[in-house]
Amino acid sequence: MRIDIKQDLMDENNAYAAENRLLFRRYGVFTLNVMGAPGAGKTTLLERILRRIHQRIRAAVIEGDLATAKDARRIADCGVPVVQINTDGGCHLDALMINKVLSGFYLDDIDLLIIENVGNLVCPAAFDLGEDLRMVVMSIAAGGDKPSKYPTAFLAADIVVLNKMDMLEMVDIDLAEMKKDILNIKPDIKIFQTCCRKGEVHGVDELAEYLIKLTKAKHADD
Amino acid sequence: MRIDIKQDLMDENNAYAAENRLLFRRYGVFTLNVMGAPGAGKTTLLERILRRIHQRIRAAVIEGDLATAKDARRIADCGVPVVQINTDGGCHLDALMINKVLSGFYLDDIDLLIIENVGNLVCPAAFDLGEDLRMVVMSIAAGGDKPSKYPTAFLAADIVVLNKMDMLEMVDIDLAEMKKDILNIKPDIKIFQTCCRKGEVHGVDELAEYLIKLTKAKHADD
Repeated sequence: MRIDIKQDLMDENNAYAAENRLLFRRYGVFTLNVMGAPGAGKTTLLERILRRIHQRIRAAVIEGDLATAKDARRIADCGVPVVQINTDGGCHLDALMINKVLSGFYLDDIDLLIIENVGNLVCPAAFDLGEDLRMVVMSIAAGGDKPSKYPTAFLAADIVVLNKMDMLEMVDIDLAEMKKDILNIKPDIKIFQTCCRKGEVHGVDELAEYLIKLTKAKHADD
Repeated sequence: MRIDIKQDLMDENNAYAAENRLLFRRYGVFTLNVMGAPGAGKTTLLERILRRIHQRIRAAVIEGDLATAKDARRIADCGVPVVQINTDGGCHLDALMINKVLSGFYLDDIDLLIIENVGNLVCPAAFDLGEDLRMVVMSIAAGGDKPSKYPTAFLAADIVVLNKMDMLEMVDIDLAEMKKDILNIKPDIKIFQTCCRKGEVHGVDELAEYLIKLTKAKHADD
């Protein structure tokens, strides 16, 4: 009984995800779903990326949080259109929430839509939003055992960003071993290493170029 | 319809939580539910606490993880009885999972049962396990905006532990402001500050003494 109910909810989500995907295709919007635990550094990474790309492609952002519009305000300061979704305690974004806020954007004027999911390394991975690409952001300060302990998020991702690399010295992590763990879970995942701390930013250029390349490739397809 | 279904699941959980609570009371077991995001440092904090208390009170641990028995092995090395629950992708422990593994312990020989929940700052807060006390562990490296962005976990907690305090210098956090945010959400929450890093351990003694005091108080009640 319980399995059926869950399946119904997933079917409903997948139907909206398919509708979103059609919309994104029609308007030529490349869509990135950003997932990661609270404190992985998702919003700061997005700020760094947006300031690098927004002269070259037209970006927009949907911010998902349980509460507050703090992240949306930070993104707005980057000069990018942004809509905040508050889940009011909910642990993930779903495709219907995305569908509802899409009317708040001029999709024709957007090349890349970034969706920052609720900070949670478990639940968001189960919900297709209609996105083209999934990126998991992980703070290196969270410890090297996280990929093997939270495999579903990595299994569902196309990119993993190891962020806060400036903290590597302060944690007992065998970086090579951790990357091996990630590739064991998802052999074709692409791994980036970044630091977004003021004065020590590195690795963001490479990631930004990669996102621009994929965004333009989607446009070339259309 | 969906609300009813959710209510049914919560009713079922609450029934098992009540059963667990009766069991804990009958055997005089004080129970602590430990919650926090992946990488908050929950397991390392427990290792530090267990090595301090296990000569004075009899402790046992239930470890909750999506996958692997890594954490249970670390706890077993502390000389404490431990059972690992793997949720196989599930985002939280529920009262039935706890109920099922209680037969694996000699409850008569346990004063303090610590349950380390799945690493997730959202979902575990909604599920009563029958515990006496709830503790949220938060890595200071996760950033100062987390309490206001994830209020439900703090609202459901009796204790919050600000962990990895050695990283305070590396993050832009106004500690006083963050504590104020936490107390705004839950005015009577008790805040501890710890560092569990080898060679720099501090704050754990105070927390361990507090847990011993509460455990003994429950025994005195019985």
